[in-house]
Amino acid sequence: MKLLEQRIKQDGYILDDNIVKVDSFLNHQLDIRFLSSLGEEIYRYFRDKEFTKILTIEASGIALATVIAERFNYIPVVFAKKQKTKNIGTDLFEESVKSYTTDKEYTVTVSKKFLSPDDKLLIVDDFLAEGNAMRGLIGLANQSGASIEGLSVAIEKSFQSGGDMIRDMGYDLLSLARIKSIANGEITFIKQDYDW
Amino acid sequence: MKLLEQRIKQDGYILDDNIVKVDSFLNHQLDIRFLSSLGEEIYRYFRDKEFTKILTIEASGIALATVIAERFNYIPVVFAKKQKTKNIGTDLFEESVKSYTTDKEYTVTVSKKFLSPDDKLLIVDDFLAEGNAMRGLIGLANQSGASIEGLSVAIEKSFQSGGDMIRDMGYDLLSLARIKSIANGEITFIKQDYDW
Repeated sequence: MKLLEQRIKQDGYILDDNIVKVDSFLNHQLDIRFLSSLGEEIYRYFRDKEFTKILTIEASGIALATVIAERFNYIPVVFAKKQKTKNIGTDLFEESVKSYTTDKEYTVTVSKKFLSPDDKLLIVDDFLAEGNAMRGLIGLANQSGASIEGLSVAIEKSFQSGGDMIRDMGYDLLSLARIKSIANGEITFIKQDYDW
Repeated sequence: MKLLEQRIKQDGYILDDNIVKVDSFLNHQLDIRFLSSLGEEIYRYFRDKEFTKILTIEASGIALATVIAERFNYIPVVFAKKQKTKNIGTDLFEESVKSYTTDKEYTVTVSKKFLSPDDKLLIVDDFLAEGNAMRGLIGLANQSGASIEGLSVAIEKSFQSGGDMIRDMGYDLLSLARIKSIANGEITFIKQDYDW
């Protein structure tokens, strides 16, 4: 998706050869108009599918999931939580996830009330690198018996293994921008078939 | 706001005489169409003000902030983070906050890049009880020199002190539903002037 690639080149910055920061528009400050245009692209790609819910994970996935839901006739968004609070209740699906950015294990949870075998899910997140959070979301969906009809992220770091892992599992994954490499201060992208 | 009061009565449930759960539409599963109608009410209340940014806190505030931003001509949303990750950077505003639900202290942070003395803020969150998270957001805004032009929450638990604390500070606070009491399985609300 050219629009996102251009924005990453314009406003992203490289912390080292592994990390690109897009905190001015995607995951700390949020450019909602821009996110809406990403939501529109995700809708165009998946519009022939019937989803019943969008599943994402706190916190950065929530805004993108919100604007996607607006396009899919306001299907509900469910966001997995990253830790248990005393209020969440005991009737939970749980998966253990390793964080790439903090290097710690944490638990992601969803209330059993909000995922069922009747659900057809679009799973959404902002970033895909090693795929640990996505694996957690897939695990939660599988526990519930819901079917996973599609997955989408804004940015895939394709030099890490998460994207290929998910495709190898047979899922339909849309990554709006696929970063091929971050080296010598230069970000390069993988050309994609659905560039429009 | 009658719409939210009705929804709380319909879909909320009481955990004890202190806690009402609205996780089926506001803070775990999200009814985006309903949140949009809340965003519209918040816009109607504040539409004569000029905001440059919406400040909220992860995670439950993000979806509401997103739909409000859509109404205020897509001003940026900035969400404060609840813990430091190794990626967030060192140039941060920080405030210490005590969580009402987990009883722990945590740090809320915002990158100094995203709040400045030129900013006119609308501060948004889903819930207001003791006001600890709101106090953290107000502290971050004050550190930055930004002016706080308004604050809004979906649900204020008016039998706790947060709402009055913020009004006593002189701020313009819009709480869409103000819960007066939760007792004997019954939720009662404070009648508000701006019910429409």
